[in-house]
Amino acid sequence: MKKLSVIGIGAGDPDHLTMQAVKALNQVDVFFLMDKGPAKEMLLDLRREICQRYIIGRTYRFVEAYSPERQRDDTDYTASVEALNRAKQTTFERLIDEELSDGQHGGFLVWGDPSLYDSTLRILQAILDAGRCAFEFDVIPGITSVQALAAKHKVPLNTIGGSLEITTGRRLAAGQVGDAASVVVMLDAGDAYQCVSDPDTRIYWGAYVGTPVERLIAGRLGDVADDIERTRKAAREEHGWIMDTYLLRRR
Amino acid sequence: MKKLSVIGIGAGDPDHLTMQAVKALNQVDVFFLMDKGPAKEMLLDLRREICQRYIIGRTYRFVEAYSPERQRDDTDYTASVEALNRAKQTTFERLIDEELSDGQHGGFLVWGDPSLYDSTLRILQAILDAGRCAFEFDVIPGITSVQALAAKHKVPLNTIGGSLEITTGRRLAAGQVGDAASVVVMLDAGDAYQCVSDPDTRIYWGAYVGTPVERLIAGRLGDVADDIERTRKAAREEHGWIMDTYLLRRR
Repeated sequence: MKKLSVIGIGAGDPDHLTMQAVKALNQVDVFFLMDKGPAKEMLLDLRREICQRYIIGRTYRFVEAYSPERQRDDTDYTASVEALNRAKQTTFERLIDEELSDGQHGGFLVWGDPSLYDSTLRILQAILDAGRCAFEFDVIPGITSVQALAAKHKVPLNTIGGSLEITTGRRLAAGQVGDAASVVVMLDAGDAYQCVSDPDTRIYWGAYVGTPVERLIAGRLGDVADDIERTRKAAREEHGWIMDTYLLRRR
Repeated sequence: MKKLSVIGIGAGDPDHLTMQAVKALNQVDVFFLMDKGPAKEMLLDLRREICQRYIIGRTYRFVEAYSPERQRDDTDYTASVEALNRAKQTTFERLIDEELSDGQHGGFLVWGDPSLYDSTLRILQAILDAGRCAFEFDVIPGITSVQALAAKHKVPLNTIGGSLEITTGRRLAAGQVGDAASVVVMLDAGDAYQCVSDPDTRIYWGAYVGTPVERLIAGRLGDVADDIERTRKAAREEHGWIMDTYLLRRR
């Protein structure tokens, strides 16, 4: 039997790794790397650093696989992600078939936690459901950028007894959010916080949280929104990409 | 200056600890323990085990502090938690004053993540705002029971591009939830999942996740709700307390 581990490696700080993740790293023979786009080099370097730091007395190898980009001009977001996942599924099946022998252990290193806005679990389940590949897999949770953000701002995610909604920039911009007292926004390709109508909403924003180039801004949205927009633009120009998250606390 | 660290220690499995948490444990002189109620002994034992396993070549001590119970007959939940937090604030101020010398480092070990349904950050901020005690503090994120649950069920928390609402059993039972495709319920003292009207909702339930007595049940709510209710009742009788969480996936 082939074995796979989907390992959450935290939000960018190698110290986010859990003991469970370190133990899992030390059982893997082949790491599958799927990064792409402008962040690819930095993300690959961080993964190599994590493996070098935590894997002891064991040989392992990396396999890089071309992964197609999502068609961003597509108007149906869910359909475009599903098409992307089918393409990734074909790639994953080939990797498991060709790069892993029976009895070997493959690893996927996932930023944050594999259960939050990541498709690896969905794709592996689809492969098993299709029945073309046989393997066992397990999942190791990891610290998300949401948790790293709250820790750096020293702020609770929820109010007392209140709900927390975790959503996307796309949904916030479209007004598709509920009335939870606290809203966390991920995957904001635009500046969706500018669509929030109440300027007294508080925002706790962070980019590259846990890395040496971390940026944090907090305050009344009416006071800091333009500062965040400028900071995002400058950071994206400087690094070629941005990964940021924010918490909105409504009145 | 006195220093405090609020350290997330995961959902019950000592392997959930992050490298960052282990480094923080190794800087603490005094750990403040606030557990109470029927879970107290098990929670204290787990904390002692974590300190014994991860603190190397350093002396430290535990200080147990009486912490009042919330008035459960109170009809206003938020007010009763606020009253409890004021009482805890008085206790925390006394501990920081009496048990910690200048230059010493105190530690609070928080189950899960300090930013999710935990009052420690709120209370420390209130003490600083009141200006009666001076200290610095930092926050170390930890794996939550929500993440441990998703990992054990090998299931994503969100659907593609969908929102995730994290809420309480109290709010679910009162119908105070939004229309997110995925809802995580914490702090369910009753059996609030029995209030969900659509029997085709899928539920992923877990208790004591990550501990040796972990229990997991998943399925169509109409098929498994009564099984979960029986399992919860039996587990609460056996252990004297229960800590469980679940994910609801709507159609």
